Order: sequence, then C-alpha cells, then structure tokens
Amino acid sequence: MKILGVTITPVAFADPPLLNVMGVHEPFALRSVLELRCEDGIVGLGESYGDATFLDMASKAAPLLAGIDVFDLPGLRTAVAGAVSGSVFTDQHGLTGAFSGDKTLATVYSLFEVAALDAQGKALGLPVVDLLGGAARDKVDFSAYLFYKFAEHQNGRTDEWGDVRTPESVVDEARAMIDRYGFTSIKLKGGVFEPDQEIAAMRALAEAFPGHPLRVDPNGAWTVPTSIRVAEELDGVLEYLEDPTPGIEGMGEVAKHASMPLATNMCVVRFADLPPAIEHGSVGIVLSDHHYWGGLRQTQALSVLCETFGLGLSMHSNSHLGISLAAMVHVAAATPHLTYACDTHWPWKTEDVIVPGALEFVDGAIAVPRSPGLGVELDEDALGRAHENFVKCGQTVRDDPTYMRRYEPDFKPNIARW
Amino acid sequence: MKILGVTITPVAFADPPLLNVMGVHEPFALRSVLELRCEDGIVGLGESYGDATFLDMASKAAPLLAGIDVFDLPGLRTAVAGAVSGSVFTDQHGLTGAFSGDKTLATVYSLFEVAALDAQGKALGLPVVDLLGGAARDKVDFSAYLFYKFAEHQNGRTDEWGDVRTPESVVDEARAMIDRYGFTSIKLKGGVFEPDQEIAAMRALAEAFPGHPLRVDPNGAWTVPTSIRVAEELDGVLEYLEDPTPGIEGMGEVAKHASMPLATNMCVVRFADLPPAIEHGSVGIVLSDHHYWGGLRQTQALSVLCETFGLGLSMHSNSHLGISLAAMVHVAAATPHLTYACDTHWPWKTEDVIVPGALEFVDGAIAVPRSPGLGVELDEDALGRAHENFVKCGQTVRDDPTYMRRYEPDFKPNIARW
Repeated sequence: MKILGVTITPVAFADPPLLNVMGVHEPFALRSVLELRCEDGIVGLGESYGDATFLDMASKAAPLLAGIDVFDLPGLRTAVAGAVSGSVFTDQHGLTGAFSGDKTLATVYSLFEVAALDAQGKALGLPVVDLLGGAARDKVDFSAYLFYKFAEHQNGRTDEWGDVRTPESVVDEARAMIDRYGFTSIKLKGGVFEPDQEIAAMRALAEAFPGHPLRVDPNGAWTVPTSIRVAEELDGVLEYLEDPTPGIEGMGEVAKHASMPLATNMCVVRFADLPPAIEHGSVGIVLSDHHYWGGLRQTQALSVLCETFGLGLSMHSNSHLGISLAAMVHVAAATPHLTYACDTHWPWKTEDVIVPGALEFVDGAIAVPRSPGLGVELDEDALGRAHENFVKCGQTVRDDPTYMRRYEPDFKPNIARW
Repeated sequence: MKILGVTITPVAFADPPLLNVMGVHEPFALRSVLELRCEDGIVGLGESYGDATFLDMASKAAPLLAGIDVFDLPGLRTAVAGAVSGSVFTDQHGLTGAFSGDKTLATVYSLFEVAALDAQGKALGLPVVDLLGGAARDKVDFSAYLFYKFAEHQNGRTDEWGDVRTPESVVDEARAMIDRYGFTSIKLKGGVFEPDQEIAAMRALAEAFPGHPLRVDPNGAWTVPTSIRVAEELDGVLEYLEDPTPGIEGMGEVAKHASMPLATNMCVVRFADLPPAIEHGSVGIVLSDHHYWGGLRQTQALSVLCETFGLGLSMHSNSHLGISLAAMVHVAAATPHLTYACDTHWPWKTEDVIVPGALEFVDGAIAVPRSPGLGVELDEDALGRAHENFVKCGQTVRDDPTYMRRYEPDFKPNIARW
C-alpha cells in the first residue's frame, strides 16, 4: 500500500500559564498534525511538535514520501534521513535535553512512523498495539501531572485551575485532578521556586495522599549539592526524583547519594546517551518519549535495553493532543517492561483535534483502543479551528523564558540556579 | 484469531560427520516442527531443537496455548513462562553457551513466537518481515560455513563432501560450496585440530579466495595465551575471530590484544550477559540466534542494543531446516543493524520439510519471501519421512562427544584444550 501524499497542519491549542524551570507556558501550545494519505483511501494520523524548526524539517521530508510502501518503515526512515541530513532540530525551551543529528532524525522520523503504523493498522483492521507485538496490558496508567501556575495569562485569559504557587494550592490542584481522573501516581513539575518550598509541597502531597507514589521534576534546577540535600529531605517521600541537576556526570554524583532512583528525560535523550549514563550510574529510570526516541518501535527497543541494564522505564510528556496520547497508549501497552505510570499533560487542555470518546481516563488509566490503527478519528472541524488558532496566535516557537519576562522582567531560566 | 491447538512433530534429517570442539555430528540432526493451528484454518509454522529436553518443555507449553489470540504475544509468552517456570533447558553439546532459566524461557517461547508471526502474516496477507517493521534489505547474505569432517559415518554412510581434515581439503570444500551457492564470506568451524593446522587452513583460504571475508570459530578450544597468539598470526587474515576462548573474562583478555573484533555465540547468549560482556570489552560482535534469544522481535531489540554500544551483529546457526531458515531470513531482513553475512548449515543437509523453491541461494544470498507469513509451505510427505527418520534413528539428544568416541575412543571435548 503506497503512500500517495502528506499533509502537515500546524495547530495551536489554549494552554494555561504553567510554570517550569524555563519560565511559563505561553497562551497557546503548538503541535503538528500529520495526515499520511495512502492507497485505498487509508489515511494515517501522526502528531508532534509545532515549532517552526520542526515544521520546516517535517515539510522537507514530506514530498519525498510519495510512492513508499507504508509497510516499508526502513525505506520511510531512509527518506526522512535524506531530508534532514546535516540539520539539527533545536528548540528554545531545552526541556528535552541536548540536540544532535541523530535525535533530529529520530524526532522527524517518529512523526511519520506513527502515521504509517496507524495506516497499517487501518489497512489490516488491526490496532497498533497488535502491530507492535500485542498488548502486555489492556489499560495504561498515567500520573497526575501537577504544575505551579499563574492565575491568568497576560491577555487576561483565566482557567478553572486558578493560582497555584503554594504547597496548599498544589494539594488542591492534585485533589481536583485526582477527583476527576482517578490518578494514583502524582508528579509535580518543580524548578520554579526555591527548593525548600518545593520540598514542602511534596511533603504536603505525601500527607494529603498517603500511599500515592510521588515524583518531583525540577528540570535540572538544582546544583549537585542541593540535589543531594533535597534527596535526603525527601527520603521516603518520593518514588523517584526526576532530573534534579543537569548532565550525566552531575546526575551520577547525585545518584551516589540519593536513596530513591533518579529518572531522566534530559540527560538521556537518545541511544548514544545510554552508554555514558550507564557507566556513570546516572539514572535508575529512563523516561521514554516516542516523539524523539525514533518512534514506537524504537521505544520498545529502548525498553529491552533498560531491562537489560536494570533500569526502569517510564514515559515523558510534552503538551499534546489526542493523536499523540493514542500513540503513547499503544506503545505503553505493547511494552512489557514499563515500570511506572506514564506522564501526560492531558488534563491541562480544553480542546482537541480528535473525535471525543476514544480515550477516557478511568481510575487514572486509559483502556487501549481496539479499533484499527491508533483508534482515534480526526475531527476535521476541530482541526480547522486548531489551525486557525495557530495562524491567529502568532506564536511560531515555544519560548517560555521570553513570555515569563512579561511577568518577571528580570527572569532567567532556573537551570542549576539553586 | 484464537489458537485452537498445537502439533509438535520431532524430526530427524541426515547430517554428515562434521567435526567440532565437542566431537562429531551424529548420523541425524534432530529438530522439532511446530504447527500452530488457528481459527479460519490458518496454520503457523515453527522450527527449533529436537532434543528430548526441549521437546519435553515445548510439549508442556503446548496445551496451555489454546484460546490465546495469536496477536497476543505477551499472553503467549506468559503461558510459556508458566509451563517452563523453574526448569532449565540443557543440552549435551554446550555449543550455545551457559544454561539459565531466562534462556530456557526465551528458547521455548521462540518456537511459538515464530509460528504465531507466521500465522499473523498468513491471516493478514503480509510477509513476516513487514510485521517486524519492514525490510531493511530485500536479500540476506549468508557465509560459506566450512567444517572439517570425516569421510563417512560409523554406519558406513558417505556424502558428496568426502574427507576434509587438511588445509587443502578445506579449500576444496570452500570452492565446491562457493561454486554452488555463491557465498562471499567464509567461516571455518575450528577447534578440531591443533591451532597451527587451523591457522594454516585460514591462510590457505585467504590465498585461494582473496577479498573474501574470513572467520574461524574454534568454540572456545583455546586458552587465552593461545588465542592471543592465533589472533596475531591471523592479523590481516580474519574479519572476525569467533569464540577463541571460553567465558566473558577470557574473551575480554583476548580482545585487549587481538587486532580483529571477537564474535560470540557462547559467552553472550542472553540479555543478562551483555552488561558484563560490555564492561569487560569481551566482544565486538554478537551472533544473534532467534532460537534462543527469545524470538524474532527480541532479536531486533538485541540489534538496537548492539548498535547503541558499538557492537556489530551477525547471526549464528545450528543444523536446521527450511522453516528456521525462513525465520532467519525475515528477521535478518527486518534488522537494519546487521553488519555481517549470517551463518547457515543449509548446504550440509540433503532433505527438508518444506516445499522446495521458496528459499534459493543466489550469489550467497536469499531473497526475502514476499508471500504471506514466513513464505514457506510444509510438505506433509516430507514431514512424515523426517518424523520416521526420528523414530528409526534412535537418537534423542545431540551427543557429539559420545559419538566421537566411536572414532577416537579416548576423545575428550577440546574446550580450552590448546
């Protein structure tokens, strides 16, 4: 079944002013939606980043794909490699680690691989999870992903979550999110306030939600000594500590002293990062993300590698829509060695590009769709609205620090600040 | 599509008296042929070892599989794990490394995984290579697999290859095999004679076949100092040196001094062997074998792991029939990081259980079948004959040393002998 053509639609969706080490989320989150048109009227769906640099590279690859058989994933990868050769995809938020040529290829290829698998599944009448070797679980657990946040955007737009900048309001946010979705594991995006305040927030969560596994992710906001101190203070509180400090060597130093495993989606972001990270004992848990690890099949290979070296596997999330969530659910289901609940930004959005109903949280988990492909359907009207958002919002790159300076004129990213 | 039932047929096929470190091949090689009967009249084929211990474990798993969906590979694996739990599959030839519970599960599961993938492909109208992510190559290169051998079996049965126990006759054997099949890479099974004679054979091959990549595999017949000496003597002659000495530590010592990479299918035979082998720098090339690495998908994961750690990947072979060869071809085709021609015992057999024609060597390579599943068809009459061989031959385990003592009464396996 040959690929006939490709449509990539940049979209934007309203995002609350969520705080992180780099600043604050802008009014809109950007994504790209891929329609991979194939013979027999089959259309495969994909979703990834919406930054201009990513759209540029994906658009370069797109015209090279016509005529490739949708089952020929190596051929698809070769075509993408030809398009992005010599280029390095960068972003301005730096929240997914270092940039490189191999990560660029893995990132751009992933968009097309997911859509090809969706098309394969639709052509065969098979859910993607079965194309990936079958379901090791029939539902996938996710964590409550808490953020500190401002009450409103600079344009005055508010949201139902309000101002969250104290331990008490973090607990309120967690309660609202858990009440609605049933999450068990709880993650706080840290790196926003000085460590003692974030320690207090984690302790407040532990007290309010006994038995719930807890994580904090300051995105490398802390020095090595501070990370070691925080790990001591949160001994017995955290199931894992995510990216306390930047870099493989710094993480290795922290890991020597921390009682809980360290997790990362910043210092290990491609296969080439694994040998030095293993040598330095930098991480106990890799946070996979098919969007930049080279697609669903490579995510599965990463899992075997982690299992081999005694590393846990969990899943990272960026702001995303339903196509990405469906892909995350299918690959998580098809990956036996997935040892923690996955992250998702899902609760923070209020609109989508897929027809509602395919992906619902029950007790913090999503049942794996059993309909063909990813099991989600594009809502053409919603896609049109989301594209209109993109055109109107004027954003072309994610730039949390610059936006943050409209709240705090002297703001600098908090990487290794404390 | 549910599994309805399982038939495992033990078979035997005539094998020449091929020499190795453990002794000599007996008159028949034993295999098992699996028919996995599914709904809609689909039958998936598998092939693996035929030793009594293997047949016993596979037979324990078989009755647990009815009712499992053939796309539910994790469910299939769980059922097999339940059947073999606590058991360790051993053999008496020791040519594929140490035994363990995880290797046992991987070995027994592999038989069923291949048949399930064959059934999936037949149900979907898709070749197995496409189920594995698509073809990175449309033909798979194999090596000429040379053996020292006796002219005849103890029962007087001779073969077309004659007596091969000198460098000159090794060259003749290579020439006949290359003339017929077109192989480029050449491998000699060593560990039979004292190292200087095998060095002479490799030099004779290098002279007779300039430009052909050469390998020698003594199956751990040499001590560390001897291995280092042979590596020096064959500097510039070998593309790789396979298992010169036993064990991860010994291999690591040899690797420090050898100019060519070391390959193994003896000291790294499961994922758990990789971390220590990487730590010791023991091997430059892993020889995969889906029969004991846990099937076709795990072989692909092994490839990604090898690529990540800068290791090459090639493929090991035991005596096998056409179903196994088809599986080897499909997984090799679907594995981008496969860096050498694969091994096969194919030229040594004179009969099979599949309908001829699907797998043909042209220029030393086999074109990947594009028909559904593995692309091979069981020949019921041939299967019947091969089963009759099994019943009549009286062999139930592969036991090269005992058989060798009928030629040389004082024979002891040559492991680390020289």
